[in-house]
Amino acid sequence: MQALLTELASLLGNDDLLTEPADCWPYGCDNSRRQLSPIAVAFAREHAQVAEIVRSCARHGVAITARGRGTGTAGAAVPAPGALCLSFERMNRIIDIIPGDRIAIVQPGVMNGELQSACAAHGLFWPPDPSSAAYCSVGGNLACNAAGPRAIRYGTARENTLGLLAVSGTGDSLRTGCYTSKGVVGYDLTRLVIGSEGTLALITEATLKLCNIPEARHTLRAAFVDFAAAARALTRVMATPLGVSALEFMDRHAVALIKDLPGIDLPARAGALLIVELDGPRSAMQSEVAALRRALTDDGTLEVRVARSDTQREELWAARKALSPALRNIAPDKINEDVVVPVSKMPKLLEILDSLATRHGITMVNFGHAGNGNIHVNLLTDFGRAGERDKARKCLAQVFEAVLLLQGTLSGEHGIGYDKREFLGLEIEPAALALMKKIKQQFDPAGILNPDKLFVPTQSPPASPAN
Amino acid sequence: MQALLTELASLLGNDDLLTEPADCWPYGCDNSRRQLSPIAVAFAREHAQVAEIVRSCARHGVAITARGRGTGTAGAAVPAPGALCLSFERMNRIIDIIPGDRIAIVQPGVMNGELQSACAAHGLFWPPDPSSAAYCSVGGNLACNAAGPRAIRYGTARENTLGLLAVSGTGDSLRTGCYTSKGVVGYDLTRLVIGSEGTLALITEATLKLCNIPEARHTLRAAFVDFAAAARALTRVMATPLGVSALEFMDRHAVALIKDLPGIDLPARAGALLIVELDGPRSAMQSEVAALRRALTDDGTLEVRVARSDTQREELWAARKALSPALRNIAPDKINEDVVVPVSKMPKLLEILDSLATRHGITMVNFGHAGNGNIHVNLLTDFGRAGERDKARKCLAQVFEAVLLLQGTLSGEHGIGYDKREFLGLEIEPAALALMKKIKQQFDPAGILNPDKLFVPTQSPPASPAN
Repeated sequence: MQALLTELASLLGNDDLLTEPADCWPYGCDNSRRQLSPIAVAFAREHAQVAEIVRSCARHGVAITARGRGTGTAGAAVPAPGALCLSFERMNRIIDIIPGDRIAIVQPGVMNGELQSACAAHGLFWPPDPSSAAYCSVGGNLACNAAGPRAIRYGTARENTLGLLAVSGTGDSLRTGCYTSKGVVGYDLTRLVIGSEGTLALITEATLKLCNIPEARHTLRAAFVDFAAAARALTRVMATPLGVSALEFMDRHAVALIKDLPGIDLPARAGALLIVELDGPRSAMQSEVAALRRALTDDGTLEVRVARSDTQREELWAARKALSPALRNIAPDKINEDVVVPVSKMPKLLEILDSLATRHGITMVNFGHAGNGNIHVNLLTDFGRAGERDKARKCLAQVFEAVLLLQGTLSGEHGIGYDKREFLGLEIEPAALALMKKIKQQFDPAGILNPDKLFVPTQSPPASPAN
Repeated sequence: MQALLTELASLLGNDDLLTEPADCWPYGCDNSRRQLSPIAVAFAREHAQVAEIVRSCARHGVAITARGRGTGTAGAAVPAPGALCLSFERMNRIIDIIPGDRIAIVQPGVMNGELQSACAAHGLFWPPDPSSAAYCSVGGNLACNAAGPRAIRYGTARENTLGLLAVSGTGDSLRTGCYTSKGVVGYDLTRLVIGSEGTLALITEATLKLCNIPEARHTLRAAFVDFAAAARALTRVMATPLGVSALEFMDRHAVALIKDLPGIDLPARAGALLIVELDGPRSAMQSEVAALRRALTDDGTLEVRVARSDTQREELWAARKALSPALRNIAPDKINEDVVVPVSKMPKLLEILDSLATRHGITMVNFGHAGNGNIHVNLLTDFGRAGERDKARKCLAQVFEAVLLLQGTLSGEHGIGYDKREFLGLEIEPAALALMKKIKQQFDPAGILNPDKLFVPTQSPPASPAN
């Protein structure tokens, strides 16, 4: 271990290597609230250093957990036991923005929000917009295939990345994809690495596909008597060619939590909310808003409000934004899931969630990206109370079971990390799972890239009875 | 071999197995004009049969080349030597279209055009629109990651497929991806299989992401004095948030070929064309068309025409559609490439193509998807003349060299197949290429799925000097 640290110090210099436990501590956690300090923290500033760090670690048999800004919620950035944390926060240059080609070339440590500002100067944006955009990195976005509300219209990181430069577990440099918006030369390693949570290769540069900022954007908020009414509206909205760029929902538990907060002006009977954003040409907005209002309205609709200004827009979103702090106030612990079901099956899933909440005596609050069927299921709990952790765990297993029965998936945008690896086998069938593990071995034969994430570690073979 | 055929006959019945050389002959070619008859043609009708066929072939060490409708241009569907042709043309059911979830579940043999008609009944469409849409299959589209003009706005097959059912080279069933428009559970095997030209797994079912048909669509055609003027217009168009759903170009050689044909009404001085389609809300069309007309216009623009009816729309596209027959008339042989460069580098590439054409004494005609920088370079030649084949080959190698120097890619939508496999190493660096081959081995350890495609076959090791 000391030999590795000596190598890293000579490679990076002392300023870019942390070895004191107190310095390493903050690099031991992410938003999953897990904590395990790395043996050291290395800050890379360029591709060649990353390749060198990987080769050093491979020689010394030390694992590497790559880190963007630690905003992930599934534990992917929490160091594996005995791992080095390779932080990309100082490898944070926007290398180029080429408006004529609508691409940006960036290092992985660039913050999402910073990239958006730089692109906006050219009338462009990069679609992935996780709620942590201001303080999460593009590299982390790619490692976890981040999305956000805009995914309904513009897709996730996988649909908005053209190519990568990366370092495999052997320290080899991999150039994947291309600089163009089309390309079919060889296998698609770009999308394979995106969403692989640092287990296949470490991304050191990305060529991102940008979009033109639309001329106009409008926000509407509709309150419904119950989710069934919201779901009917959702179906009608999905069936129109309207330029819907966000389609968020809150269920009755979520609405109840924030309804009486100051500044949140909602009908007393509100039992579900949809917040919808439209974008497109300015000349279309009046008729698009009218058409959207019609699609949102039937006898289960209590009101539809349209923002006429940025201030009003903020007011409409306030309901959604008040939710996270409100959740923190009512329960000390929260399990925040992000399951997905086909949009048409959301009413059924919410019904099942209600009955599971009752059966297990756990409060569940649900909201999320309705246009993708992506539901942030929040189990509110208090792990300090005896038996709570176990109860929540059982309930969660039944949530996942229901999601899969409805042809859904266990994670829409948070990923697997540590938190869901034991459930992976519920969704991925054995043949595909075995292939994924074999692919991992090709990228990382020594198994040093973020080991134990995504997959449950293979148990050591049982001792032979002969011994 | 006879043992395999007996097994296949008992599995499929005699009607779904062709063994007579005359019957097999039509299954030996694709649009690359290569021809090599398969040892037999098996028609699968369901997933289980495909798995069984693969297992039989694996047992007997016989290769399999899967076939949609043989419209590919790179030879991917031309049987490998000694291979069985597994045709999907009778496995052609649309299993389900679910408008509320905007998905279609299809068998691979469904024709692209047939799928579009079925989707249109629900106000939906599947974005990939190769020019062969009426007679190519969705399975072939997926195997080659097909695209077409709409890719500029809606993406290629990879951006519009949610999940697959497939059979690996070991006969294992692989379920990849999901039924939802978001999902990050495990590695992205869906995109890995898409575009792999039948070398990793055989697709037996696909869950496709559909889009709402836009309310309105308008077509404009602009004629320019030269490509430099067209390129300036292209840059201006790309910088607007206009809803451009196709952005096609023809260079001066292409324009010269069709300018004087009956029904093609073009300015005498026309040296380049752009054909642009806009789609979006009806209420926006008037101002969008006006804005597009402005973006298309400077002092190098000769005219901008706007189609006011379907008939006029057909007239504007007539210029583009007359091109393929015109090409056939002037040269017996044609090498049709589909290189891509960043949009901003198209003028430079066209300049280089012109000088290569002069240097090699080969006529080159260029057109394609300008919005993606995807250029169909056509080398017109006559292989009957001595030395022509060699000359074309040398010229082509220099075209590829120029494309890669401009940060382009060798194929935007046609793929590699047989035709470009020897050039793969020019674009894909050794580490990535080695990984691709290792991934192939995991999916297909016996190497029976479309061997010799994509990669140049590994040579036998040289005889040891000791022997």
